[in-house]
Amino acid sequence: MNAIGTLFRVQLFGESHGPAVGVVVDGIPAGLSLGPADFEPDLERRRAGAPGTTPRAEPDIPELLSGVYQGRTTGTPLCAIFRNADARPADYDRFSDMPRPGHADLVSRIRYSGYADPRGSGHFSGRLTLALVAAGVVAKKALPGVSFGARVIEADGRVDIDAAIAEAAADGDSVGAVVELRASGLRAGLGEPFFGALESLAAAALFAVPGVRGVEFGDGFAAARMRGSEHNDPIVAPDGAMSKNGSGGVNGGISNGNELVVRVAMKPASTIAKPQRTWNFATGAMDELSAPGRHDACIALRGAVALEAALAVVLADLELQALARGASLPNGGIPS
Amino acid sequence: MNAIGTLFRVQLFGESHGPAVGVVVDGIPAGLSLGPADFEPDLERRRAGAPGTTPRAEPDIPELLSGVYQGRTTGTPLCAIFRNADARPADYDRFSDMPRPGHADLVSRIRYSGYADPRGSGHFSGRLTLALVAAGVVAKKALPGVSFGARVIEADGRVDIDAAIAEAAADGDSVGAVVELRASGLRAGLGEPFFGALESLAAAALFAVPGVRGVEFGDGFAAARMRGSEHNDPIVAPDGAMSKNGSGGVNGGISNGNELVVRVAMKPASTIAKPQRTWNFATGAMDELSAPGRHDACIALRGAVALEAALAVVLADLELQALARGASLPNGGIPS
Amino acid sequence: MNAIGTLFRVQLFGESHGPAVGVVVDGIPAGLSLGPADFEPDLERRRAGAPGTTPRAEPDIPELLSGVYQGRTTGTPLCAIFRNADARPADYDRFSDMPRPGHADLVSRIRYSGYADPRGSGHFSGRLTLALVAAGVVAKKALPGVSFGARVIEADGRVDIDAAIAEAAADGDSVGAVVELRASGLRAGLGEPFFGALESLAAAALFAVPGVRGVEFGDGFAAARMRGSEHNDPIVAPDGAMSKNGSGGVNGGISNGNELVVRVAMKPASTIAKPQRTWNFATGAMDELSAPGRHDACIALRGAVALEAALAVVLADLELQALARGASLPNGGIPS
Amino acid sequence: MNAIGTLFRVQLFGESHGPAVGVVVDGIPAGLSLGPADFEPDLERRRAGAPGTTPRAEPDIPELLSGVYQGRTTGTPLCAIFRNADARPADYDRFSDMPRPGHADLVSRIRYSGYADPRGSGHFSGRLTLALVAAGVVAKKALPGVSFGARVIEADGRVDIDAAIAEAAADGDSVGAVVELRASGLRAGLGEPFFGALESLAAAALFAVPGVRGVEFGDGFAAARMRGSEHNDPIVAPDGAMSKNGSGGVNGGISNGNELVVRVAMKPASTIAKPQRTWNFATGAMDELSAPGRHDACIALRGAVALEAALAVVLADLELQALARGASLPNGGIPS
Repeated sequence: MNAIGTLFRVQLFGESHGPAVGVVVDGIPAGLSLGPADFEPDLERRRAGAPGTTPRAEPDIPELLSGVYQGRTTGTPLCAIFRNADARPADYDRFSDMPRPGHADLVSRIRYSGYADPRGSGHFSGRLTLALVAAGVVAKKALPGVSFGARVIEADGRVDIDAAIAEAAADGDSVGAVVELRASGLRAGLGEPFFGALESLAAAALFAVPGVRGVEFGDGFAAARMRGSEHNDPIVAPDGAMSKNGSGGVNGGISNGNELVVRVAMKPASTIAKPQRTWNFATGAMDELSAPGRHDACIALRGAVALEAALAVVLADLELQALARGASLPNGGIPS
Repeated sequence: MNAIGTLFRVQLFGESHGPAVGVVVDGIPAGLSLGPADFEPDLERRRAGAPGTTPRAEPDIPELLSGVYQGRTTGTPLCAIFRNADARPADYDRFSDMPRPGHADLVSRIRYSGYADPRGSGHFSGRLTLALVAAGVVAKKALPGVSFGARVIEADGRVDIDAAIAEAAADGDSVGAVVELRASGLRAGLGEPFFGALESLAAAALFAVPGVRGVEFGDGFAAARMRGSEHNDPIVAPDGAMSKNGSGGVNGGISNGNELVVRVAMKPASTIAKPQRTWNFATGAMDELSAPGRHDACIALRGAVALEAALAVVLADLELQALARGASLPNGGIPS
Repeated sequence: MNAIGTLFRVQLFGESHGPAVGVVVDGIPAGLSLGPADFEPDLERRRAGAPGTTPRAEPDIPELLSGVYQGRTTGTPLCAIFRNADARPADYDRFSDMPRPGHADLVSRIRYSGYADPRGSGHFSGRLTLALVAAGVVAKKALPGVSFGARVIEADGRVDIDAAIAEAAADGDSVGAVVELRASGLRAGLGEPFFGALESLAAAALFAVPGVRGVEFGDGFAAARMRGSEHNDPIVAPDGAMSKNGSGGVNGGISNGNELVVRVAMKPASTIAKPQRTWNFATGAMDELSAPGRHDACIALRGAVALEAALAVVLADLELQALARGASLPNGGIPS
Repeated sequence: MNAIGTLFRVQLFGESHGPAVGVVVDGIPAGLSLGPADFEPDLERRRAGAPGTTPRAEPDIPELLSGVYQGRTTGTPLCAIFRNADARPADYDRFSDMPRPGHADLVSRIRYSGYADPRGSGHFSGRLTLALVAAGVVAKKALPGVSFGARVIEADGRVDIDAAIAEAAADGDSVGAVVELRASGLRAGLGEPFFGALESLAAAALFAVPGVRGVEFGDGFAAARMRGSEHNDPIVAPDGAMSKNGSGGVNGGISNGNELVVRVAMKPASTIAKPQRTWNFATGAMDELSAPGRHDACIALRGAVALEAALAVVLADLELQALARGASLPNGGIPS
């Protein structure tokens, strides 16, 4: 379903070329300072126009329908919507008959019995991440003292990312990338194992973002190639500080107070100018498909802030759960 | 928390050296053939004794307390418990004061305010995966026609896995490994995007298994180093068959009918004989810790079947959700 | 929180005098015929203007932001909003200092730490039921063959209801009432005991409607004054038909195929012209409060359709859960 | 399903004549003093032997399988089981063919497709409330300062309850009853409207208890026969104290700090010696059924403590949710 969270809950809705995309955030602590301007920095990070991104220019200012009064959150659900505009749905007509390789076109037909809104990929559009970014802004407000970072560290296997993207775009192709997320200032003790492990909840939110193919924490897949004596982090102080951070800030499903480090593999965009082979349901035969318009060559560029938002949403939820068990007590509930 | 699932729900409980570990599985379809013998093959795969695993020899036969009558599931919750035995908790006393690097010892102190059962790692013991394996057996019964596989494909970065493990064990060390999971025979259309994406739910369940550091689908992190024209899977038939499987059987959060392929990075075990530096809370100073007993040198060996179980639990849940929207109709709900 | 449901999920939001109230409905089966006109009959039943109701005249036409395409549900979340208008929030200013006896004014101060939107009772306004009614319209679409009825059967202890309300209104007072809900055409077998009992889920939804003080099924409280030989319903046919319906269509938490009968006690409205004693937080002393404007004298009149909607939402959810376990099989899954 | 709760979660399992009934309680605060003896007082209240109750004498001592260590809760799931004994399942054979009027026999056949364990009513047995009572004991530990009461205030419409029951028993019949629950010492501000209203959650838990037909708060159904000026509670002090308690301690879905008062209508037991007409599925014709053994004449006697437990479970969950939003702050989060 389109909701996530236990105490801090996020419900998305919308289709790319319907009236609006949006989000309801429930469980927001009352009294947080929040207004439309708070959304602007993260929305700007996501906005179209960067190299390798589509030029669809929409203002994308959230309209706050509820949950805020006199510049403060009320504690009741906040609904934020983004009106759709600049729609050229005809661009997408062909994909109804010829599903894009790598895209949700095919599975959407099956899953929604042919009734999904196909325009602009509908509910599967990257535009849905606008709503997620908005939820992330609210989540960060509920995490005072925590700072976030999201960075594309590699694209097409290269660290000269701009060049990698430009070359692919010139070829009518797209590139995958790795995004590294960091969150510092988290309290130790966040996580609800077994199944509410911090990694579990974070990965669930991250894999929901379109195009994510892998998630790893700390040393991640590299840990599978290490010995324990190499991977394990020596604890060097009673507050849990470690001399290195191979665990990426989380052990046994629970934050350890060190910086949280997550890396996310994003696939190359499916919609490319270069011709691709696929089934044509109209003709009942193999066919060749190309998408000549302008498309994101590297979805990770705009996706990074959405991934950061997904992580923030999960951490806000875990923070509220930690408070429920007395984590606000002196010394963070650490037994003396 | 310790439960997962929407319609097929799994609730774990237990500590390694308490009376028992166990699981309640709720939402099981009524009428499935199920008896104690059905659990034996997967439990045998998990059982101690293989090279690189601990020799703790317990029969680990599940006692079924509810939910089964005359060899059939009743449709009411099934509770299966495994009595603990062969306990030598004194082995673990030292870890209360000196948390093992890489282990949950430290965060457990904080998260549970000092009240967690420390014996044998308590609730954080790998023994909890016994209960998960039992749940997986039930889940597979609810997925007729689906076959599963789990294989350690790499340890310590090497494909000659047995040697890698033996060498590490000889050094009093441990090794990480990659487990590849496969599920074939799944229907297309499983998954509940946005947040109920198949990858989201699967990753949440997999990261709950102790020691998991990374999860990827299909090409996974390699997709981040590819171009779209390389990664995308051409669709070659109206049933969604693809000429290659870079997506690992799932697009846009929904199964596409091809084989599901997931790889999981498992870290090296934290408990090793080799001395490690850590904080000694009793002395208030840095200290050196070694765990001379016999321990799993490669937790992936026994963990593989637990990972497979975690995946099966999620797929059973998604299968029930698919039925709820009419997926049992002729042609699997595919629009004609 | 403001969401309910397992497979058919309803998330409310909004304040009475903020920009809008609305609802997101997730889990709607794809392909249901649905358009703005479908909402009109139930919204008309709820609309202001009937005797004993407030004259606030708003068109209250839902704007559908998502989840519908070409007159059919897409299977993705539907968001419907109702813009607020005709707002005279100044009417409510006094209640911030002097909470209305019987109203949520006092607890809202505490629960939301003083940050709730006080205008027109904010999130506690009866206006929120607009969103619930909209959800109910969608739910009924998912229950083909089921017909609903809601009737005020008693007000102020009298069956000549119109007169009871008119007299109270003339006195500047309000009256309580009993609403009887009926649903016929339900399949037998709806309900997920223990805690997912049909009565449990229905009561939870009904008690969420502002002003509900009691809920009973079939003979209800009268059953507490009966003997078993009087209350029990003889079963007179293999399809479960009963010669009377003291159970109100549900046994052991599961529908039995007979008509579902629920009665709901709604309290008299809290906002009345007649002076009432309450605490004045501004003066720190007892004071007298009267609300001279025009208010609903009997909230059950407009509330009845909201209660019916709440019931429909729960039944749609249970119907989807029944399908998940194969209830669509011939003979409704009844063992032969 | 068989689980309830958001932060304090209760999962029941078991059949009356299977190996055991039991419960897993997840989300228990760590560090609560808890041992087997703590369960005894409430279990004694539920135990068989009182007038009008069945003589099935079982010790019903809980075995704690997890979640407790050295007399304190660990913060991980607690599993408590009660072994079944003294079983005479043959007593129940006849009900497979001839479902008891008023009982779940019929709907159980349908809902579980004929696979439910029929012995002693299986999962629908009142014996399941043993597990609920155990959960209630834990919940009360998480509510320090709150005291509970449960009292049968009326049976068969009479206040001389013992006589009413004795007379019915002598007639081979059963009687319904009203149970009044009270909880004092609750903080103001418990409840998560809209759908997490205190009344919603409490009613859901209470209606799950077998035999409940009605639930009301404060004046309840009587409020439907009152005017507002009569029902509303004047607020007489800044802490929310009221001069009367017609609201039963809850307004708008949120506790107001006054005593919580709930009344529950329990139906007469379905299993009676007196002959009743029902369908005989074996002969395909109407037939007469009597249950000559000894049965509870008034299930409310033993059910009262189960209802109290259900209420406690919900309140513990709401208390934890209140803590999550800072209710532990000085002055209970009440804005100054």
